[in-house]
Amino acid sequence: MPRFKMTVEYDGTPYVGWQRQENGHSVQAAIEGAILSLTQETVVIRGAGRTDSGVHAMGQVIHADLSREWAPFKLRNALNAHLMMAEEKVSVLEVERVSDDFDARFSALRRHYLYRIISRRSPLAIEARRAWWVSKDLDHEAMHAAAQMLVGHHDFTTFRSAHCQAKSPVRTLDRLDVTRHGELIEIRASAQSFLHNQIRSFAGTLKLAGEGRMTPEDVRAALEARDRAACGPVAPPEGLYFMQVDYPDSQPG
Amino acid sequence: MPRFKMTVEYDGTPYVGWQRQENGHSVQAAIEGAILSLTQETVVIRGAGRTDSGVHAMGQVIHADLSREWAPFKLRNALNAHLMMAEEKVSVLEVERVSDDFDARFSALRRHYLYRIISRRSPLAIEARRAWWVSKDLDHEAMHAAAQMLVGHHDFTTFRSAHCQAKSPVRTLDRLDVTRHGELIEIRASAQSFLHNQIRSFAGTLKLAGEGRMTPEDVRAALEARDRAACGPVAPPEGLYFMQVDYPDSQPG
Repeated sequence: MPRFKMTVEYDGTPYVGWQRQENGHSVQAAIEGAILSLTQETVVIRGAGRTDSGVHAMGQVIHADLSREWAPFKLRNALNAHLMMAEEKVSVLEVERVSDDFDARFSALRRHYLYRIISRRSPLAIEARRAWWVSKDLDHEAMHAAAQMLVGHHDFTTFRSAHCQAKSPVRTLDRLDVTRHGELIEIRASAQSFLHNQIRSFAGTLKLAGEGRMTPEDVRAALEARDRAACGPVAPPEGLYFMQVDYPDSQPG
Repeated sequence: MPRFKMTVEYDGTPYVGWQRQENGHSVQAAIEGAILSLTQETVVIRGAGRTDSGVHAMGQVIHADLSREWAPFKLRNALNAHLMMAEEKVSVLEVERVSDDFDARFSALRRHYLYRIISRRSPLAIEARRAWWVSKDLDHEAMHAAAQMLVGHHDFTTFRSAHCQAKSPVRTLDRLDVTRHGELIEIRASAQSFLHNQIRSFAGTLKLAGEGRMTPEDVRAALEARDRAACGPVAPPEGLYFMQVDYPDSQPG
């Protein structure tokens, strides 16, 4: 069966998360539903990463095996037509025909996430559900300095959800950069893989650093504690975006 | 009675428009409702400009007369608390105490609007209701060249809604710039005042220029025709943002 790689964007607000669940509508079910209504095939797709309810994606990657060949642009347009008809908040950005050894999850070399904070006195209207509103002033340089304590190969038990299913808490964090553009603070994180809630745990902890409530040394000590209790409050899902996945053939962005 | 100037942001999607109307909930009614619940005063506010249903604002300006003095930041925070409680998609960005001769509408020297187009093959998920999705390729340089035909002092009958209540169709358009950032095309328009649907009429016409279906000369001829029928289809409201109003004391942005 021909295998297709698809890059998808979604607004995570109305979904229970990426993964199909009993308790509500998921992004996975939305895409599988569009495939079913287009091809009459019940397909199980696999995503490069799971996202929680409210978390967005601008570059989630999936693969799906279909029973027949499709011109990639026709498959993309037809799936988008079905997604729009169903009023899903999901859009297929790109479709590629790939070989059977491509796996959206296991072939991934690197995953890139963005966490958006808007720091200002007034609540968000335009950007509501698209960023974390923080009413306090944040020192983004202090946040960046603290973030550098987390980069590298570490046991990230402190920054891992109690529900995390990964066997090991050890990961290599390649990048954790904090930059500011006016009232918008962007945290960009890259690694081969992440633990559950890892980036939202980073964001919540870096916010404390931005408020001056944790120094970079405190953040290092929190990491070394390997204790969930040392983590700042987990940041809300609406600031998190799954941006991009790199694969052996693909260009890193 | 002390007069307050307020700068407000709103997501226009759930509202019938700026102005209080019989047929649904307006932004004006949302703000007047917050003032009523805060101060028990029934106040009629005035905005610098009316916006249609679905049109957003990042810098609408209003004035309101209240019965007592307020520290501006306290009034802002209290109104935002009431707006959030009522689940309004409106945020008060700034409050200033102004003299009685300040009028949000009549003191305005210049109004600034942004029209956002996202030009790509796939529908919008993250930016749905925040931009006009155009699936065709657009040449933004051709759009900018066409836009320059509209700058200056003209009879804008061609680009005016049939429902426009202004006495004269003559306006001076100070700026109409088209720029591109990746798949986002931004049209920035500035003038002392605009006619009803003028910017959405510009955007719809400039889109035709971007597709190569109108040359700059065609746009000039459409302007000179002074005929609504010469205008391209009016662009949808979700791309339009009321960005800023300049007043005699304020710094132009």
